[in-house]
Amino acid sequence: MPQLNENFLKLEKNYLFINIAKKIKAYSDANPDADIIRMGIGDVTQPIAQCVIDAMKKGADEMAVKETFKGYEDSGAGYDFLKEAVSGYYSSFGVEIKPDEIRINDGAKCDCGNIVDIFGNDNVVLITDPAYPVYVDTNLMNGRRVIYADSNEQNSFAAMPDESVHADLIYLCSPNNPTGSVYTKDQLKEWISYAKKNNAIIIYDCAYEAFITEEDIPRSIFAVEGSRECAIEMCSLSKTAGFTGMRCGYTVIPDELTAKASDGSEVSISQLWGRRQGSKFNGVSYPVQCAAAAVFSEEGLKQTSENIKYYQQNAKVIASALDEMGIKYTGGKNSPYIWFKCPNNMSSWDFFDKLLSEANVVGTPGSGFGKNGEGWFRLTAFGDSERTKEAMERFKALKF
Amino acid sequence: MPQLNENFLKLEKNYLFINIAKKIKAYSDANPDADIIRMGIGDVTQPIAQCVIDAMKKGADEMAVKETFKGYEDSGAGYDFLKEAVSGYYSSFGVEIKPDEIRINDGAKCDCGNIVDIFGNDNVVLITDPAYPVYVDTNLMNGRRVIYADSNEQNSFAAMPDESVHADLIYLCSPNNPTGSVYTKDQLKEWISYAKKNNAIIIYDCAYEAFITEEDIPRSIFAVEGSRECAIEMCSLSKTAGFTGMRCGYTVIPDELTAKASDGSEVSISQLWGRRQGSKFNGVSYPVQCAAAAVFSEEGLKQTSENIKYYQQNAKVIASALDEMGIKYTGGKNSPYIWFKCPNNMSSWDFFDKLLSEANVVGTPGSGFGKNGEGWFRLTAFGDSERTKEAMERFKALKF
Repeated sequence: MPQLNENFLKLEKNYLFINIAKKIKAYSDANPDADIIRMGIGDVTQPIAQCVIDAMKKGADEMAVKETFKGYEDSGAGYDFLKEAVSGYYSSFGVEIKPDEIRINDGAKCDCGNIVDIFGNDNVVLITDPAYPVYVDTNLMNGRRVIYADSNEQNSFAAMPDESVHADLIYLCSPNNPTGSVYTKDQLKEWISYAKKNNAIIIYDCAYEAFITEEDIPRSIFAVEGSRECAIEMCSLSKTAGFTGMRCGYTVIPDELTAKASDGSEVSISQLWGRRQGSKFNGVSYPVQCAAAAVFSEEGLKQTSENIKYYQQNAKVIASALDEMGIKYTGGKNSPYIWFKCPNNMSSWDFFDKLLSEANVVGTPGSGFGKNGEGWFRLTAFGDSERTKEAMERFKALKF
Repeated sequence: MPQLNENFLKLEKNYLFINIAKKIKAYSDANPDADIIRMGIGDVTQPIAQCVIDAMKKGADEMAVKETFKGYEDSGAGYDFLKEAVSGYYSSFGVEIKPDEIRINDGAKCDCGNIVDIFGNDNVVLITDPAYPVYVDTNLMNGRRVIYADSNEQNSFAAMPDESVHADLIYLCSPNNPTGSVYTKDQLKEWISYAKKNNAIIIYDCAYEAFITEEDIPRSIFAVEGSRECAIEMCSLSKTAGFTGMRCGYTVIPDELTAKASDGSEVSISQLWGRRQGSKFNGVSYPVQCAAAAVFSEEGLKQTSENIKYYQQNAKVIASALDEMGIKYTGGKNSPYIWFKCPNNMSSWDFFDKLLSEANVVGTPGSGFGKNGEGWFRLTAFGDSERTKEAMERFKALKF
């Protein structure tokens, strides 16, 4: 009889967003005429830039011709043209990453979830709370001990290290999902110093870096000194260029990053991850890689930044409405997420139900991201601009 | 200090095909004028059918328009239109699979490698030897005990169960990679009966099913009675439709498939796998799914079958040359692989070196697939037809 990985049975049965989808379905089945505005799941709504689509179609055409047909990718880690484009993108904000330190994948979530394969199960994993559920769930699936660093109102939802606590793996996300908070360079220096003291590795998720507007907020952990010996970075085109349905991201593992095996040998993390991917991954679709490379072209960056500005305007609309109502929040400035305290000290799910049933607006209950999220709520700026305005009008009209 | 998953350190450092690539590179660096014919890695060479590319471009165009833009897929398991197309394909050879029993993925290798996540590490894993290295490596990565069922000359490289041995998870591949052997319905019945006696689950890889020409050879394990309670099937469009660089496959988990948890509860394998994918996967690129669905259209199947016939003709060329030389082989009839005994009782790698250096032809050493592969060699029929003929002429001219 196959023994199951029973760690799965200890997880919540469903992923947060699947639960939300079920609640919405139940409500709209009962109220078929309700005009629901979705500001829950962090999915984009603006179409992909035309020059990016043109590049994908060109790549598709190549697949129809014997001379230009592409089969398996040799490395499975991405074509050079795309790795060079990503490397150039990093350079544009002053961070030098070699193309071969970049591995192309089918989205940051996949690598974020799978990276744990290369680590043992006895590591202590430190995750900020609240957090993107993938960090927690994928570690619990292997039975690892997860400890939390509190993000809360006192620290503006940007948790800092507790020197009295030991950790081996540390998950950081900036701009943060769900709280929209960002780490400054000095704060990241503290985390890097903590990681080095603990010989820990930081798994840094910067999927929302394109939303950073302030000069002194790093767009990559590799903008901060000392990070190359202790960090892995994961980013994605999902939010940068509307690729949630296209599926392309990248992971950066610096050549310097190693860990000691029990026999004392130094093991390259990049090589270990390459070995994992060699057996469990086979590269990203060639036309998708063509599209991704076009995002980083001059025209691609120009067209794509229009979408980012559009969402940033939505963030302002949400933030202004909250200001008007006197509701406390983080995010919205360097982030597409706005994280606010539920009015009237309501619980996250109670407020979710009220917002859905009385305003027909869907958001994400903060408690779904961890205990410190209780009483807080996330709205995303990824919606349509008129609908976002309409949603905030309905929110303002709520009676408590 | 992060503890590594030290099971990785016990694996061979490099994946078989990476080693071969290195040997080829060393040879061609030393012999830049050598006209090397590659019949090693099982990669296709014919371009993708035009109607499939047209469907991909149409899907790409939809991504550029707000009204038809697609973001995250709700389930991450594939759009209904594709799951229904795959279900219809199964029906066309008499196998009924519900669309919701099908999960779309980015290639059979990925699911084949990742499926082990949902099983405990104390399972006994039975793998036929020789085998596709992914089955073995991904289990060794979790420290599972792997036992082998011998495929050899005596059983025409189609291993059968040994009733005296217990296993919890069983990997079968038909048409087989690397040996080209196929299981008959009666042979699969024996495996299913063995699995049921052991309460085991069969992981059935039929990535090469499109090459089956004989009526009585099942194209799916679900064509065989009793399989729905004990099997998971993985298939791919890589070989069916030239998708090695497009990345799309599918996994079938029947609703009936369950396993008992240690508390005695019945756990749905499909739900468990869904929970895994919910945290570590985010669906296949929408335009790729559009392309995949077009493969199963009437026109798609027609155009695609032309490519299959082209490769089948190559297989005949290889088989005829071996017949002429009096070399024993399996495969080639219901499979794109031809698996033969190295001439003169040479070892697999010795023959690899001779074939590369004296005929400038690349194949795959059988020993790379397991101990029973020693002294055997794999050639693929996925090459260009003229080059395949040329390769076999050079092979015939070799002096031993």
